[in-house]
Amino acid sequence: MIDLVLIGAGTGHPDHLTLQGVRALQEADLVLIPRKGAGKEDLAHLRRAMLDRHRPGGAVAQIDLPVRDANLPYLEAVDRWHDAIAQVWAGAAAAALPQGGTVAMLVWGDPSLYDSSLRIAARLDWRARVIPGITAIQALCAAHAIPLNALGSEVRITTGRRLRDAGFPDDADRVVVMLDGTCAFATLPPQGLRIWWGAYLGMPEQLLEAGPLTEAGPRIEAARAAARAAHGWIMDCYLLSRDDAA
Amino acid sequence: MIDLVLIGAGTGHPDHLTLQGVRALQEADLVLIPRKGAGKEDLAHLRRAMLDRHRPGGAVAQIDLPVRDANLPYLEAVDRWHDAIAQVWAGAAAAALPQGGTVAMLVWGDPSLYDSSLRIAARLDWRARVIPGITAIQALCAAHAIPLNALGSEVRITTGRRLRDAGFPDDADRVVVMLDGTCAFATLPPQGLRIWWGAYLGMPEQLLEAGPLTEAGPRIEAARAAARAAHGWIMDCYLLSRDDAA
Repeated sequence: MIDLVLIGAGTGHPDHLTLQGVRALQEADLVLIPRKGAGKEDLAHLRRAMLDRHRPGGAVAQIDLPVRDANLPYLEAVDRWHDAIAQVWAGAAAAALPQGGTVAMLVWGDPSLYDSSLRIAARLDWRARVIPGITAIQALCAAHAIPLNALGSEVRITTGRRLRDAGFPDDADRVVVMLDGTCAFATLPPQGLRIWWGAYLGMPEQLLEAGPLTEAGPRIEAARAAARAAHGWIMDCYLLSRDDAA
Repeated sequence: MIDLVLIGAGTGHPDHLTLQGVRALQEADLVLIPRKGAGKEDLAHLRRAMLDRHRPGGAVAQIDLPVRDANLPYLEAVDRWHDAIAQVWAGAAAAALPQGGTVAMLVWGDPSLYDSSLRIAARLDWRARVIPGITAIQALCAAHAIPLNALGSEVRITTGRRLRDAGFPDDADRVVVMLDGTCAFATLPPQGLRIWWGAYLGMPEQLLEAGPLTEAGPRIEAARAAARAAHGWIMDCYLLSRDDAA
């Protein structure tokens, strides 16, 4: 029997890790980490640094994650991809822990937010436990020193795809946008909107921009393209607010 | 000049604190903590335990927070209340650090989410910095080992007051409800909705309930009333989802 612990690792600052996360890393019988993916060297390095610091010499298994089939419809492709990842997890755990034990994984951000580890774990006969971690939303608000919500108001968390398809919702004051690979904010009529944007949040490379979308939008598009070219990858998110709610 | 550091302290588990939070506690010249409020003894105890562990013997100033004027309209009352709190902070900092320095405060959850510390700090000529912390939303999802969002979908974060006034939004799949003192979920037509509820999240007293709202709703109302009577206070939140989005 395998006990799985998904540890929220924060967004890129090694000290985003919670004391609970440190303890779970130390107590696990095995930590699974994906081998470097193309363009994500900085993150692989960070994960390795966390293990060296909190679990020196502890058992670690590197896994090769399968690739999503780009020729299938999106949801079907994701479903099969998760099946395949679950098989890789199961194989690595069985090889290292034939008698069973506790397997930990470091998950960027928080395992509850736009992460598939829980859905993958549900395919296996494992007990899954979650240690919460700092999300990009929190790292964004902290870096800008702003509240996420207006007083007593609601907030939406959405994706770049949805913002692009549906626009800024008529009945929303504040919208956080994640998983946006293509600057969906640039498709909105910018008047009356403010933006707070951040990339590589918590990392030494952190970039921040904020202001009226009319002015900050083009700056962000340029900064994002330059940073992506320089680093080979980017992770970013942003908060949009109506002026009168800011 | 005062540098203010607002440290997200998580929801009640002492190990929700991040390594960044521990360091900020240790480096501050002074930590301000509110004196026990009525019915919040458990939380005052927890804050004190964090300080004893991470900052033994360090300078701490207890402050007496003013009370909100219940006779004024809500927003005006909050505005004046925040003015008064800012004056208390300023007085405590001036008394302990006449030459200036770094003042830290432990904020339950994360300073960006339904917390007024940043709005209060904006009234003072202080530089404010934020260390993110684990929110009740994350502690709720972790405790239930569930994702917050459905795959590629959006999530709303709202208040009990708004849920009561506006109902479950027609165009939403998942809604997290915070600051609900009166079981606003019980005012919804329960058919087709699921709920995941948690109280005292992260604490030894933690309570969890989940299920179709038709069945779990009455259980939660009873558990909440009993717990509130037993402890004298309660902090809880919940996630509502349409069945077909769960």
